[in-house]
Amino acid sequence: MVEAHDAVEVIRAKRDKHVLSDSQIDWVVDAYTRGVVADEQMSALAMAILLNGMEPGETSRWTAAMIASGERMDFSGLSRRTADKHSTGGVGDKITLPLAPLVAACGVAVPQLSGRGLGHTGGTLDKLESIPGWRAELSNDDMLAQLEDIGAVICAAGAGLAPADKKLYALRDVTGTVEAIPLIASSIMSKKIAEGTGALVLDVKVGSGAFMKDLDRARELAATMVSLGKDAGVHTVALLTDMDTPLGFTAGNALEVRESVEVLAGGGPADVVELTVALAREMLAGAGKDDVDPAEVLASGRAMDAWRAMIAAQDGDPDAELPVAREQHVVTAPASGVLTKLDAMAVGMAAWRLGAGRAKQGETVQAGAGVEWHARPGDTVAAGQPLLTLHTDEPARFERALAALEGGVEIGDAFEPTTLIRGRID
Amino acid sequence: MVEAHDAVEVIRAKRDKHVLSDSQIDWVVDAYTRGVVADEQMSALAMAILLNGMEPGETSRWTAAMIASGERMDFSGLSRRTADKHSTGGVGDKITLPLAPLVAACGVAVPQLSGRGLGHTGGTLDKLESIPGWRAELSNDDMLAQLEDIGAVICAAGAGLAPADKKLYALRDVTGTVEAIPLIASSIMSKKIAEGTGALVLDVKVGSGAFMKDLDRARELAATMVSLGKDAGVHTVALLTDMDTPLGFTAGNALEVRESVEVLAGGGPADVVELTVALAREMLAGAGKDDVDPAEVLASGRAMDAWRAMIAAQDGDPDAELPVAREQHVVTAPASGVLTKLDAMAVGMAAWRLGAGRAKQGETVQAGAGVEWHARPGDTVAAGQPLLTLHTDEPARFERALAALEGGVEIGDAFEPTTLIRGRID
Repeated sequence: MVEAHDAVEVIRAKRDKHVLSDSQIDWVVDAYTRGVVADEQMSALAMAILLNGMEPGETSRWTAAMIASGERMDFSGLSRRTADKHSTGGVGDKITLPLAPLVAACGVAVPQLSGRGLGHTGGTLDKLESIPGWRAELSNDDMLAQLEDIGAVICAAGAGLAPADKKLYALRDVTGTVEAIPLIASSIMSKKIAEGTGALVLDVKVGSGAFMKDLDRARELAATMVSLGKDAGVHTVALLTDMDTPLGFTAGNALEVRESVEVLAGGGPADVVELTVALAREMLAGAGKDDVDPAEVLASGRAMDAWRAMIAAQDGDPDAELPVAREQHVVTAPASGVLTKLDAMAVGMAAWRLGAGRAKQGETVQAGAGVEWHARPGDTVAAGQPLLTLHTDEPARFERALAALEGGVEIGDAFEPTTLIRGRID
Repeated sequence: MVEAHDAVEVIRAKRDKHVLSDSQIDWVVDAYTRGVVADEQMSALAMAILLNGMEPGETSRWTAAMIASGERMDFSGLSRRTADKHSTGGVGDKITLPLAPLVAACGVAVPQLSGRGLGHTGGTLDKLESIPGWRAELSNDDMLAQLEDIGAVICAAGAGLAPADKKLYALRDVTGTVEAIPLIASSIMSKKIAEGTGALVLDVKVGSGAFMKDLDRARELAATMVSLGKDAGVHTVALLTDMDTPLGFTAGNALEVRESVEVLAGGGPADVVELTVALAREMLAGAGKDDVDPAEVLASGRAMDAWRAMIAAQDGDPDAELPVAREQHVVTAPASGVLTKLDAMAVGMAAWRLGAGRAKQGETVQAGAGVEWHARPGDTVAAGQPLLTLHTDEPARFERALAALEGGVEIGDAFEPTTLIRGRID
């Protein structure tokens, strides 16, 4: 039984820089979920939290209250340990696709409850839905059975997990209150903890194409989330990884599935392989299985077997041809030199405008749309060579996509190599 | 035509401590009035304004936008100049009742568009409605005619004045965003400027029974409002006046009318007379009539004539018996000594709990309910003498009223006299 409070009392407390009590937090989250606290009250509170902050204890309690607003999955009956990964969102970030079957092939179960994309970073479910037949919706029983049999499941998160977060996230989106670290951290962690994973690896993106543009803010977010995971008894580690440049050579739905399959087949872009293996190592360590080398398992083809089984279990055809966009437009290099910049935000916006992403929840996305690039920063290019290929079903979209790329690609003399994995927090 | 903006853009600008542009302010106030900006967006913006402030230019533009949301009265056709007074709300504050007819009797018209009380400070309309027959609602034509004939009108503000403020005030009330000086100042001034008065005197209360508890905040509010008045071309002056002790000897509706009539008859409490005359002087000066001495006019009985005409013009009977509450409870002095404290907030809460005020808009109030006190701080009292008389129609209310008075009345040895008028800002 939650002690009764008053919305204005709780708002005033945070407005006046007080620490909210456990009882105030429990009440306001529960009352908001039930509609007793109105949207206009919660948005005022969210703004006060954004501007005045929350202490670690408050954020932890807020997270617990959001978890308590819904159901919590339980994988304790499985024969293997569980580990999951969450990325804060990047351009060309298809890592979940090779990672989940790789970790499964290493003997740790991956229950990945995922979402659809919004804005310039794509959604994992949107990518997988480009595979003919594949379906995102699974019952809890089917999910458990697939985890036991195959060891990996990527599916839509049910509405029952952290409903308070679902409601609050939609509200923050329209009230300018997204960018509050306690609210971002509790939003991510409430869903991941409710999902029931035993270990969690966070891939916190930093750079132009990421939500966090600078390393300090990314580090603060990572540290907050790691601490929330520990408070909830979930072994949690965070990697801080570069998102100034998009990952791999593709951003789009089917385009990224194709690239992921290349990685599972033992090829694929070096950065995607590096990050997949690094995250797999962290997940295995979190689940107490650090005796297995994921790089070896990837090379053995067993991760590909797990992928094929995972896709087929959700009615997808792993051998089907992937959709290809009806129209292509090639951008050539305007000069010879070294590619010094391929801006993740510019590429993400272009892919989004080509139809790979959505502006509003509920919009459909094009399976074949997106951007392919044929060189990465540091590569030498010759004037006139193809630099980018834009894909869409609707050629009217090329113009705005090209506008998004303006200033995002630069050719120069020298390139300072960057590091993909920029930090680790545990 | 207002340039289009986006609610999240405007919220973010204030959240990130930017100065809002004129165009952003015009748009957000207009769009909120039309329902295009949602309540949850405006409350987030209000919280950002409360925590990050607004510059004088922003507050001035915000006020202008709220005025522009509705109609603006025009008294330029009257044969005499106009002046009005606004009090930020105090306990026992019946000053408007003798003041409006006094200033009218001095030759300046007083168009007082007033409201009903909410909380522990009474409303002028509630007080006048205790006079049998008196009605608060007037058409604009009747108001103009009464101003021309009698020179004073106190009536309900129409819904057409500053509708943006009406909507925003109700929102601030439930979202913990009342206490922002730019929002308080623009709320008061938008209504008063839209009301069309040529000169305005603000009575900014400071003390336990006032909205502003300390002199610095009261001074800041007063200075902000005076500056907003000047920006809008309204001659504006503010007095800062004490509200640690309630005004006069009564708090309640009919109780305060009776005391006001005593003042108009040449008697009444010294503090009520002092403040009435001081505010009248400011109003007359603001309207360019500082050659008339309001103290003389009060003594002459001409203010009483104006009162009787003003009440009669709105169908009130100035000779009717005023309602008396059915039940009385006398509180006697527990000791002999000097009354050192009669707390305005305690008295206001007691009067409210006795039925003189309302907790929610739309509730009815008791005409006869309220508190009378028989001594003021500084007076010598003897143990057992009547100190307070509580009035209500419902004796069940006495207990909670007495609880409100607990700690609010103190008898001691020495009393440091206080000043009623604590400052002046022009």
